[in-house]
Amino acid sequence: MHIELSRNSSVKLYLQIAKTLADRIQSGLLPQGTKLPSVRHLSSLLSVSPVTVSKAYAELESIHLVVCTQGKGCYVAEPSVSLHREEALDLSWQMSLIDYLPRAQLWRNFNHSRQVPYSFHIAAVQPELLPTREIINDTRRLSSEDPDAMAVYGTFEGDVELREVCAVHLSERGIRTEAEHLLVTSGAQQGIDLVARTFVGPGDVVYMEAPTYTGAIDVFTSRGAKVVMIPMDEQGMRMDILTRLRDTHPPKLIYTIPTFHNPTGITLTTVRRMQLLDLAQSYHCLIVEDDPFSDLYYKTKPPLPIKAHDLSGHVIYIKSFSKTVAPGCRIACVVATGSVLDRLVAAKSTTDLGSPLLTQKALLPFIRHRLDNHLVSLRDQMQDRLTTALHTLQRFAPAEVTWQAPEGGLNIWIKLPPAVDIAELGRLADREGISFLPGGVCYAGGMESNHIRISFSYTAKDTLEAGLRKLCRLLGELLDRSVIMERRPIL
Amino acid sequence: MHIELSRNSSVKLYLQIAKTLADRIQSGLLPQGTKLPSVRHLSSLLSVSPVTVSKAYAELESIHLVVCTQGKGCYVAEPSVSLHREEALDLSWQMSLIDYLPRAQLWRNFNHSRQVPYSFHIAAVQPELLPTREIINDTRRLSSEDPDAMAVYGTFEGDVELREVCAVHLSERGIRTEAEHLLVTSGAQQGIDLVARTFVGPGDVVYMEAPTYTGAIDVFTSRGAKVVMIPMDEQGMRMDILTRLRDTHPPKLIYTIPTFHNPTGITLTTVRRMQLLDLAQSYHCLIVEDDPFSDLYYKTKPPLPIKAHDLSGHVIYIKSFSKTVAPGCRIACVVATGSVLDRLVAAKSTTDLGSPLLTQKALLPFIRHRLDNHLVSLRDQMQDRLTTALHTLQRFAPAEVTWQAPEGGLNIWIKLPPAVDIAELGRLADREGISFLPGGVCYAGGMESNHIRISFSYTAKDTLEAGLRKLCRLLGELLDRSVIMERRPIL
Repeated sequence: MHIELSRNSSVKLYLQIAKTLADRIQSGLLPQGTKLPSVRHLSSLLSVSPVTVSKAYAELESIHLVVCTQGKGCYVAEPSVSLHREEALDLSWQMSLIDYLPRAQLWRNFNHSRQVPYSFHIAAVQPELLPTREIINDTRRLSSEDPDAMAVYGTFEGDVELREVCAVHLSERGIRTEAEHLLVTSGAQQGIDLVARTFVGPGDVVYMEAPTYTGAIDVFTSRGAKVVMIPMDEQGMRMDILTRLRDTHPPKLIYTIPTFHNPTGITLTTVRRMQLLDLAQSYHCLIVEDDPFSDLYYKTKPPLPIKAHDLSGHVIYIKSFSKTVAPGCRIACVVATGSVLDRLVAAKSTTDLGSPLLTQKALLPFIRHRLDNHLVSLRDQMQDRLTTALHTLQRFAPAEVTWQAPEGGLNIWIKLPPAVDIAELGRLADREGISFLPGGVCYAGGMESNHIRISFSYTAKDTLEAGLRKLCRLLGELLDRSVIMERRPIL
Repeated sequence: MHIELSRNSSVKLYLQIAKTLADRIQSGLLPQGTKLPSVRHLSSLLSVSPVTVSKAYAELESIHLVVCTQGKGCYVAEPSVSLHREEALDLSWQMSLIDYLPRAQLWRNFNHSRQVPYSFHIAAVQPELLPTREIINDTRRLSSEDPDAMAVYGTFEGDVELREVCAVHLSERGIRTEAEHLLVTSGAQQGIDLVARTFVGPGDVVYMEAPTYTGAIDVFTSRGAKVVMIPMDEQGMRMDILTRLRDTHPPKLIYTIPTFHNPTGITLTTVRRMQLLDLAQSYHCLIVEDDPFSDLYYKTKPPLPIKAHDLSGHVIYIKSFSKTVAPGCRIACVVATGSVLDRLVAAKSTTDLGSPLLTQKALLPFIRHRLDNHLVSLRDQMQDRLTTALHTLQRFAPAEVTWQAPEGGLNIWIKLPPAVDIAELGRLADREGISFLPGGVCYAGGMESNHIRISFSYTAKDTLEAGLRKLCRLLGELLDRSVIMERRPIL
């Protein structure tokens, strides 16, 4: 069992140990019934005192993640959803195999092969609204023109034609760039991961918005980074707090989703964008600007990307085409300059030798000729759904439930009254075929959150309305029940 | 500058520092002209004495990788091929950005977008011999049948239909497995990388064959592993040496290409396969069996994969379809069991959310219906080229040049007499449009090697013959010159 300890940290060692184990248990990487190492064994492994390990175990027991019995040791307690898989073979030895995966909330929360009727946890566009048939048909050209050109490994940095087309696309959005500064990745997730594996190591400080994209937390946590989450207000990441922290915790990297932020929908103001860039320049740190949503605006165009202002190569900009065009192709592009780009390309080579040529060539004609028109109609469709979702919530949600209407993106971040137990809501919703994202997974360390994220984009309009009504009814019932519970005299 | 130091290692600290820096310089990650940190600065950063850093720098200077000047410090010396890229902007701050990429030989040696007429460094099949047109045409079915099924994110572990088909394919080759034990990855490279990021961390001992696949060395080195390279004889990895080392350096993982090994072409005997499995079982370590070539046999079928004998989940088996079917799709599958598989799937989610659905669905019909017939004819074609290559070498290579005829795979591993300077051969060959893989990149730490790897599969038969004749002529000239040099009296 590998636990990254930072002895200079202000966080006490026993809490660092407890937190890492809690992450693994909550991710299901340490399944129910797993015996934790003995106090003596773990303390010698980590070179800490047995008291420290005992305190960590006591902490885990107090939050019901483990059960300790005198003389028998500590075992992972029954989780809400068991991930344990029965195997005919004796694979018990595998449990002693040390791994380096402290957190896998993506795996835990998003790998639902089972489709539910009201899929509100998927921040993606309804398949029927995407140009999939066109894109697949475009591949025919490839087989008639020069099939042999497809029978090779692509370059590490990606197909040069696709990079040229993407550079034009981004230049129209304020990022003046060229093919040679672009790297094609297998989705934005891989872009974030490449940055982390190249530039982030144990103890490096990474700032992120609180809350933020679950997948990014998984990535930086697995590199052993010290993740510092900065609260947001209605103008985005709070620069006053960041400014207070930067001297005591100098950042290596700032990860941000400045435009129609996931999950909150908030957009960072231009003033704060410039402040963030200033800070990166004075601290020689990197900004990762993750931008899946800027083309999906429903009122006015959002401010220019931070990358548009970057003249010194501090910003790594990541543009996904999975949201607006083709999730099945897993194509994103990363814009960077200088040795930062070279090092990312080198990391890409180690990771997978380069993204598949087929998906890159398949997307090329669409992005070149038809993407802009497609985005116009997609914005209309999404705006229509957002309106439906907001109307439904206004009519049916209990008064204590609140949200801020987003001006772009695919998500509504809904605040529930503290009386609602989100795990319980999840179980009830699941029975009715409704899924949502519990807010807690958008925080490092699985902080409690009384928010849920609803994506209004994946289900058809009438389904969206019906599902949200059901969800509002469940919320009402849970709230009523809590009122009754409170009023019930203690017997 | 991040340098992973192992204070328990038998390798002296100054050599560890020198080695890491040498790797970076040779990879081009520290380009020519980069100023190394001052002795004082680096010694405080790494908590070592200034003398240790000075000795490391002196070591690097002695092998001409850096130039040190009194009062000015040490700079990266002029490399044989400059990778430095001119930028209009001032990006010099980026040089101070610490990264975690100690070695990127893949990036350095394989990213030739420039095609040469005699591409002998590419271990891939000639594009014209691959079923690319068929595979692209198969995608039409996808757009006519159910395009919306393609407009979604796939699952992390990969398309279930593809996994079923691959399980059948592997079962016919002795690996009795099912879809639920398979993970689809973006090429074998990603499979190796997922294993490393999940199970290998700083100081973990990884055994590999010496020589081995460059891309695997990059991966394990970048995780900070202690890579131990085991020499080979004509029966594969030398188990006697492995047996001597295993107690003092207990393995976390053994990476092997047992069948038609890359680059040597040697096949590990069944007896040694069983010994390797025994060793993994008694040391509770993992075996990664990388198997790109077993379908490309030219005499008799190779022995069963190690995975076929694995009843206890110690072997992670990786099968690439890039070599035999479609390099442009980047599809491989990984077979594993129990929590080892679960953890790999979790790592896959963090890496890229799963491989693209389009490439998976594109390959499906071909693997299901036509792969076996295709392999029969591909073996014929490849055998024919191998025969041509061996005949050409026999006729034209200087007598001092030797090789062992491989019984499968795509490579010939050629031993040159010590008098041949491989870098010089590379420069001469490049002028004639010939590429090959210098053997040194197949060793960790860039060990000197007097081998080169020639892939006979990528160029058409007559081109292969013509290119090899040219290469033999160059070798002859270099040898003649060295004889003259030796005979020339010192003036």
